[in-house]
This record gives sequence, structure tokens and C-alpha cells, in this order.
Amino acid sequence: MEEVATADTEPSPMRIALRISYLGRRFSGSQQQPDTRTVEGVLIETCLRLGLFEDFRSAGFVSAGRTDAGVSARKQMVAFTTPYPERAVSSLNRMLPYDCQATGWAEVPESFNPRYQAKSRTYRYLFPEEGLDLQLMEEAASRFVGLHDFRRIARVEEGRDPMRRILSAGIFRDEDLIVFEVSGKSFLWNMVRGMATLLCAAGAGVIPPERISTLLTEEGDRIPAAPPDPLVLWDVDCGLTFNPLMRSEKADQLLRNEADRLRIGEKMVGWLGGDRRDLFWNEEIHDELGHLL
Amino acid sequence: MEEVATADTEPSPMRIALRISYLGRRFSGSQQQPDTRTVEGVLIETCLRLGLFEDFRSAGFVSAGRTDAGVSARKQMVAFTTPYPERAVSSLNRMLPYDCQATGWAEVPESFNPRYQAKSRTYRYLFPEEGLDLQLMEEAASRFVGLHDFRRIARVEEGRDPMRRILSAGIFRDEDLIVFEVSGKSFLWNMVRGMATLLCAAGAGVIPPERISTLLTEEGDRIPAAPPDPLVLWDVDCGLTFNPLMRSEKADQLLRNEADRLRIGEKMVGWLGGDRRDLFWNEEIHDELGHLL
Repeated sequence: MEEVATADTEPSPMRIALRISYLGRRFSGSQQQPDTRTVEGVLIETCLRLGLFEDFRSAGFVSAGRTDAGVSARKQMVAFTTPYPERAVSSLNRMLPYDCQATGWAEVPESFNPRYQAKSRTYRYLFPEEGLDLQLMEEAASRFVGLHDFRRIARVEEGRDPMRRILSAGIFRDEDLIVFEVSGKSFLWNMVRGMATLLCAAGAGVIPPERISTLLTEEGDRIPAAPPDPLVLWDVDCGLTFNPLMRSEKADQLLRNEADRLRIGEKMVGWLGGDRRDLFWNEEIHDELGHLL
Repeated sequence: MEEVATADTEPSPMRIALRISYLGRRFSGSQQQPDTRTVEGVLIETCLRLGLFEDFRSAGFVSAGRTDAGVSARKQMVAFTTPYPERAVSSLNRMLPYDCQATGWAEVPESFNPRYQAKSRTYRYLFPEEGLDLQLMEEAASRFVGLHDFRRIARVEEGRDPMRRILSAGIFRDEDLIVFEVSGKSFLWNMVRGMATLLCAAGAGVIPPERISTLLTEEGDRIPAAPPDPLVLWDVDCGLTFNPLMRSEKADQLLRNEADRLRIGEKMVGWLGGDRRDLFWNEEIHDELGHLL
């Protein structure tokens, strides 16, 4: 047990930023909510147990952004102020669950807020490759780049600006999956998942890639969001240099167990018939989006 | 809607055997239980909805064998008697959920009971390959062949014979997984999962393969069962020739979606650190089994 500093040697508080990685599947989103397991909830509870702060509000605990239930993060960012930064660095990962671990830390100015200081955010979205044409998807993705009104593929809260600038949007293959990678200064709620729906429609030949540009500017119903599980907040760039933090040994082991379970489940499903593949995404998209597109 | 035969043309009942494939993860085992989703429960409920019989007991509904919660089956077998076999064949898969489908049917004598008429049952168990030596596992598996008392690696119900004859037991690689395949006339409860524990211990170098022969005959605590999810009832041989049944289109689609979800989940876990692999099974086995072996 670490010794807690006594009042007369109370250290001066330091604000730190943490790079956080989590598996979205077991969380009801990132944002704190009562009576449900959220990323912020788990982080704040662990900080409280470690005595890093007594109240998340006075510690100025903030995240770079909200992710929905099911959405994972490779490099989410949080920041808070604590008199015990060494304790945070040395003990957080041992106390955090395996599906939410810190992978880096940095000292930041007292005014630092990752939500407002992020220069860019990058997301990745995964598609199964079957039935999807990589080149059509590339052409479709390129249509998102630049400044556009994204209200038709996002949930826009009352009074928010629906214009967003996309810095880059690309498609590449990774083994038997297709990866969409998109960067922008900020994103609207559900916006990347709306992009994923359109990319899937273009890749399956349901809409021509150039249709995306006109779609964004047309009046009409909102395009539904693609499922959350294939989405990961890949990076948040605040111009910081992070000191790496190791995942705890136990967390590493449990994450590998999870990977094994998934590989075994995949083989099992394949054995029971799930490896006969065809253009099913195509059909689904026709059914669900036909009337919208 | 098919016309239901009137009383004066009531067809004579036929007993049929069905080959059933199911994904264990979403079932609380195969055997009927009140208020929980089981394979038999789902099958019987669907037969009742189709009017194939009015009561599962009088229809002589029986399974070839029980599988535990989490255990899958590629070729489980059930049999029942119905006046409407054509309806069963033409409609069952459309009414059954995607995770439980019939893959074949055969007409059988009225006395047919797959539980007692099975000449052999074959199971497969999946291991991640990391940290496991294929050759050590092969040597270990060969020790199970023949007639042995398996009480130390199975749950033996009061008054049951703990002797079982293993016809074959082999190990092979399938992509990045190791498969254990074992056949016998019948198995005790939890017996294949007990074998899996010992194979894992041998493959990881925790026990020498030849230790298995002595272990089986020694007095001592029961060896714990390995997890259920990697186990599949691969085949039940009753000497029947089955007419193939197609999975419903919807079931096929949902199973492929499941495969996609698993592949995407695996990639996600890999991105978050789950692809750094080492001998963790080895450590686990040391911790849990050290005192037993």
C-alpha cells in the first residue's frame, strides 16, 4: 500500500491526460449514466478507489468525446487533476478492468480540455469484404472529404451546426475485412455510422458513389446508422506526447482469452454453416434503404 | 397455409429422425427445462406450433444425447412420431431460429431411439494453438483410446458405470487452432471437457503425456472440466442415411452475420492489444491444476 501524504506535505495537484483503450461491447457507451456500466463510470470509480480525487467535477474529469454503446476506442483521451499523478500512473491499470485500460499518460496545463483542444479525431469502421467492391467504396469515401452538411446521416442536436470538415477518408483491406478510416476536427453524433451505411450501399452497388454528394445536400429522411460494434475511435490528436503505460498482465491475459473465444466461436459458426458466404449485405441494404435512396 | 387432413383421411403416423445443428452459446443446454431456452425446448415448441404432434411424450420425442450449456452440435439427432412428416420436412427450418436448424431427415422404425441406437458419437474440442505442443497433445490423446475408467475426469451419476470405450482420439491443426476429435459408443457427463483439460495440460508441458494413463486409474479429486464453448457434438452415427435439409435462407443469413460479428470482434480485440500472444494457458493450468496433478 502506498503511503498517503499527510496534510503538511500535501503535494501540489497536477493535471494529466490519459490515453484510454476500451472494448465497446461490454459498455453502455462512454458517457456517465446512473446504474449502467459506462467507460467514464468505470474510470471515475477506479480513480475514486485509488484516492486520485474526491469528486470528478472538482477534478475537472473530461473525455475527448462520447462514444455510443458498442463502440470501441483505441486512443480515447480523458483528463483530470490529481495531487497523486504517480499513483495514477503506477496503479490505474492494475485496478481497471481488462476491457478498459490506459495506454499512455502526459502532463498537461491546468486549462487542458481534450474535448476542445483536439486537432483531429480519427475513426475506423470494419466491413466484411464479401459482396462489397473496394474501388466503389474508395470512390464513395472520397466524396465525404471537405466541408459538408452532414445532417442527413447524423443526429444533430437542436442548435448545433450540421457542417463538418472531413480531413481525410480512405478505404483499405485488412485480411478478409475492409477498413474505412476517416479523420476530421470533430464529428456529429452517429455521423461515422451514417457514413458506413452509405459506403456499404455504394460498395454493394445499391447507389453509385457519386450519388453521395447529392444525397448529402438533398432534403429527406435521415439515413439510418450502421451497427456500432464495427466502429472504433482510432485516435484523438491533441498534439501531446504520451509516456507509454503497460496494460496490466491480468488485463493482457483476459484480452487474449477474449480473442481466443472469438476465434473459436468463428470456427464453430463456420462448421455449422456460417462460412457459406454471398451478397447478403447487398440484400439487406436493398430492403432497408431502398425507399430512402 | 397447408390444409390439415380431416379425420376420415387422417394419415398414418411416421417416425422420423432429424439431424440437428445448433450454436451452443445462446442455449442453456440441450435438455428441456422450464423457463429457460434449451435446444429441446425450442424444437418441441416449434413442432407444437406446426401441429406435428400434440404432446412430446406421446410423440416419443427423444434426443441422441444431452449437451451442456454453451456446447454446440453439428449433427445432434432427435426422433419423434408425427402424422405430418412432409410438413416437418418442408416447414421446420423456416419456423426454427437461426441458431438451431435441421440439416437432414430419415424415416425410422417406430421403435427407433437415437439415444440407445447410436453406434458411436464423435466430439470435437478447439484449442488456441499458442503455448500448446501438437505432438505432446497427440501422444496424450492416444492414451484415451481403449476401455478405461473415466470417473476422475467426468461427473458420474450414482449407479452408472464409469467405464467407457474410446474408439479413436486424434489431434490436428485447423488454421490457427488445434482440434481434438474423439469417438466412442457413449460418453459420461463432462467427460470430453475433462479430456480437454488433460490435453491442454499435456500440450503446455505441465504433465508428460504418459501421466494420463496413471492419472485415470489413481484415486483423487475430480479433474475440472475445460470451458464448454469450444466443444461441439460433431456426429452421432445410428447407421441411418439422411435426406439433406436446407437451412432456411433467413437462418443462413443470420449465421453469416454472426460469423461477421465474430471476425470483426476479433480484429477489434487485436487492435486493442489482444494479438500479443504467449503461454498464458500454460500459466493458468499451473495455477489451477498444480495441486491436482
